[in-house]
Amino acid sequence: MKIIIDCLGGDNSPDANVEGAILAIRKHQDLSVVLTGDENKIKEILNKRNQGMDRIEIVHAPDVITGEDKPTEAVRFKKDSSMIRAIKILREDDSADALVSNGATGALVASTVLRIGRVEGVRRPVFCPLVPNMKGGVVGICDSGANPTVTAEMLLQFAVMGSKYLENVYKIKNPRVGLLNIGTESEKGDDLRREAYKLLSEAKGINFAGNMEARELLSGDFDLVVCDGFSGNVLVKSVEGTALMLLKKLKEDIYSKKKYKFGAFFMRKMFAEEKEFMNYQNYGGSVMLGIEKTIVKGHGSSDRKAVLKCIDQAYRMVKSGLNEKTAKAIKDNMPE
Amino acid sequence: MKIIIDCLGGDNSPDANVEGAILAIRKHQDLSVVLTGDENKIKEILNKRNQGMDRIEIVHAPDVITGEDKPTEAVRFKKDSSMIRAIKILREDDSADALVSNGATGALVASTVLRIGRVEGVRRPVFCPLVPNMKGGVVGICDSGANPTVTAEMLLQFAVMGSKYLENVYKIKNPRVGLLNIGTESEKGDDLRREAYKLLSEAKGINFAGNMEARELLSGDFDLVVCDGFSGNVLVKSVEGTALMLLKKLKEDIYSKKKYKFGAFFMRKMFAEEKEFMNYQNYGGSVMLGIEKTIVKGHGSSDRKAVLKCIDQAYRMVKSGLNEKTAKAIKDNMPE
Repeated sequence: MKIIIDCLGGDNSPDANVEGAILAIRKHQDLSVVLTGDENKIKEILNKRNQGMDRIEIVHAPDVITGEDKPTEAVRFKKDSSMIRAIKILREDDSADALVSNGATGALVASTVLRIGRVEGVRRPVFCPLVPNMKGGVVGICDSGANPTVTAEMLLQFAVMGSKYLENVYKIKNPRVGLLNIGTESEKGDDLRREAYKLLSEAKGINFAGNMEARELLSGDFDLVVCDGFSGNVLVKSVEGTALMLLKKLKEDIYSKKKYKFGAFFMRKMFAEEKEFMNYQNYGGSVMLGIEKTIVKGHGSSDRKAVLKCIDQAYRMVKSGLNEKTAKAIKDNMPE
Repeated sequence: MKIIIDCLGGDNSPDANVEGAILAIRKHQDLSVVLTGDENKIKEILNKRNQGMDRIEIVHAPDVITGEDKPTEAVRFKKDSSMIRAIKILREDDSADALVSNGATGALVASTVLRIGRVEGVRRPVFCPLVPNMKGGVVGICDSGANPTVTAEMLLQFAVMGSKYLENVYKIKNPRVGLLNIGTESEKGDDLRREAYKLLSEAKGINFAGNMEARELLSGDFDLVVCDGFSGNVLVKSVEGTALMLLKKLKEDIYSKKKYKFGAFFMRKMFAEEKEFMNYQNYGGSVMLGIEKTIVKGHGSSDRKAVLKCIDQAYRMVKSGLNEKTAKAIKDNMPE
């Protein structure tokens, strides 16, 4: 197994990325890694951790893509960036199985769509993050930004790809699939949603649980929600934004009075657990589904443990034969 | 001023509605109300509160529309419901200025669109709720469900209507308008968003502050966000759902250990304030903008104070001459 690690672009890069890679090769004896980034800095970190070069390859690519770069321009012009170099290797090296990056999401999605081939039968790759639900599990969102406009057939494919992913990598049996909509009844929403509802109801390979309103995302009643990339992006970002702002407000309120600070002293452990619960790093990275290779996008603020988690996730995705299973499921579910 | 109060459909109806109406006529000497609902029950509540019939008219309409009813069918077939009767009066009685309801949102939006005329120049009425932001203010969302699909020109009109509303009823000077999008740069999103960005940038009568990502909704950096009704609905419901579920989790966690309960004892006031902060009733009802009459939709769980707030809101909307100002602003902003 060969996994490429994009070592630039995250808040704690390159340290977290290189150290995560070290943890991964120590954990998986059949794993080799390709590290793209500033060669000298990478070597420095490897030395500091007493890590030899066995099963490690470094590809010098010192440029970095930031959130400021326009994704499509970054793909075309930042060829010496760690991300675009990583994508190039993934595309050209048949033995490269996967890529893990915590760099700019937009550029990663754009370069994947432009440079990496699709799984047979897949119309459009899909970007799928996971968020924690209130019952201790996770819920996947397909699509959350790669495809701002979609067709009903694409939504069906998203349901198939997401279901296979959750079954094979997260061991969720018969994932309950919800269609993001503005009401629960079958005739709700626009023409697209009504057509998708019909297709999803008729599909054999998925466990369709009906329309899902946005307020139910965290309820634990759905394992996967399918949606166009525009509203999926709105959904993920508003959940994230609301949670972060409420926690911030809670903290400010606690610090506003001595009495509250005193009370909070007895609840330190609880608040720490709440924070961990909301920490997206604990739930693995977002993935691109429906492409020939495996790509995992970690959170920008990933530390080495989070990077290790993303590498583990990519490792499991490849090992599970997800792409072959997805190709078969897509074929079985294509409407005539 | 004559305001119709739909007295059925809310969790605390008819008591909260009738009592809210009583508070309103005692507060505003120039206000008369029409109460639609079960006549006997309404009279009972009026008697209990020692309220005479001066400035109060009752229209017997005992049927109620629930969330289970399909909106368009309810409009056509539930003619004896308090809501549809109220809409009929609003449409036919020239002296009726406004309607306040806390019944089923879908039916209210559908009946408004089907039965009430539009302000001159307005393509489509828009449903606009307000949510609290982190700086102690509010942010309006136009549209949040009346129009699942929109054009760029409609988004411009939403911006104009929402701005006039916030200026005239909430006294927000030059409301900062954000376009809900999946990134902040001008070229982000689909064709619709790019076209809308251009129209909004060029419009003279509004204060366009650029694209807004969903995670910024509560930041206080925007007073109004314009969007198609589908993603607006997702936005509002996911903010609401996330906040409610996190507060619920917090409460469960506190009750899980004696130590936490002890700590929370010192923070009772703070938690009560957090809860009030998240209580949508404190921020007034959602409104339909761009229609000839004024319609305010209160939260389903409204108590009498919340009903009074919605009546006050309708009163201010009518008094401010919002519709005339909106008509003028729409005319000034129509692209040639």
